[in-house]
Amino acid sequence: MAEQAQGPPPARSRPERRADALVRLQGDVDLWVASADETGSAYLVPLSFYWDGATLTISTPRASRTGTNLARAGWARVALGHTRDVVIVEGSVETLEIGADRPLEDAHAEATGFDPRAEAQEYVYFRITPDTVQAWRESNELRGRRLMRGGEWLD
Amino acid sequence: MAEQAQGPPPARSRPERRADALVRLQGDVDLWVASADETGSAYLVPLSFYWDGATLTISTPRASRTGTNLARAGWARVALGHTRDVVIVEGSVETLEIGADRPLEDAHAEATGFDPRAEAQEYVYFRITPDTVQAWRESNELRGRRLMRGGEWLD
Repeated sequence: MAEQAQGPPPARSRPERRADALVRLQGDVDLWVASADETGSAYLVPLSFYWDGATLTISTPRASRTGTNLARAGWARVALGHTRDVVIVEGSVETLEIGADRPLEDAHAEATGFDPRAEAQEYVYFRITPDTVQAWRESNELRGRRLMRGGEWLD
Repeated sequence: MAEQAQGPPPARSRPERRADALVRLQGDVDLWVASADETGSAYLVPLSFYWDGATLTISTPRASRTGTNLARAGWARVALGHTRDVVIVEGSVETLEIGADRPLEDAHAEATGFDPRAEAQEYVYFRITPDTVQAWRESNELRGRRLMRGGEWLD
């Protein structure tokens, strides 16, 4: 007699999660960006991103809360996907002025459908180099959610 | 001759956005919680919530980063929905110990499918009273995104 399905599907293996995370990084357009100011006031917005295979690039007005916070902290925590299928990336943030890396700016505009170079307001780019990557769906996937540590994908 | 659709649909009116936001508050199960510590290090996780018609209640381990951050800050910024259909709520946070409000705890367990009172680890509840609510889909809805200010729904 076949067993009936109960609760969430079985937890994915680490290679499965890594493959799924890479699909999101390559195919998704938006992510959630958490940031904070020096007093510990947290902020959260959705932004579009470009993934070049190793780093995430986002762009936002220099004077915005997210822009100020990321430039200050030099570190970001971002989330891709949905609340029950999440990929969370943390890593260092490099601020890039417009004009500093034109191929990257072109690729960002193509991936996001938005070109901050055409805006009246002053934008900057932030390039995030992943240090840790986690992925989980339901609570049965909390164990084993870490896919990258110290910038290295785990086997 | 009918005009062809271009770009996103027309921006919703404020009453439409408020109605859509209330549907999410009443029907969604999860949200994104941004928080930060006193040094300005930002954090971000998905959590389940319960909406009682006026406040949002979430629960997380007391010793977790989100738990520590929310208890310290007494303020939260949370996001419901998707990156292109977002409801963002900011408001003050009240920490409720387990046992402090049993009807609320029962309602939270029923809404989320998760009962922190049954966990070995020590959980607390955080009740968020909205001060501001914003809702937008695409960039054409950034104008007019504010639906609540100072705890009052805007007409």
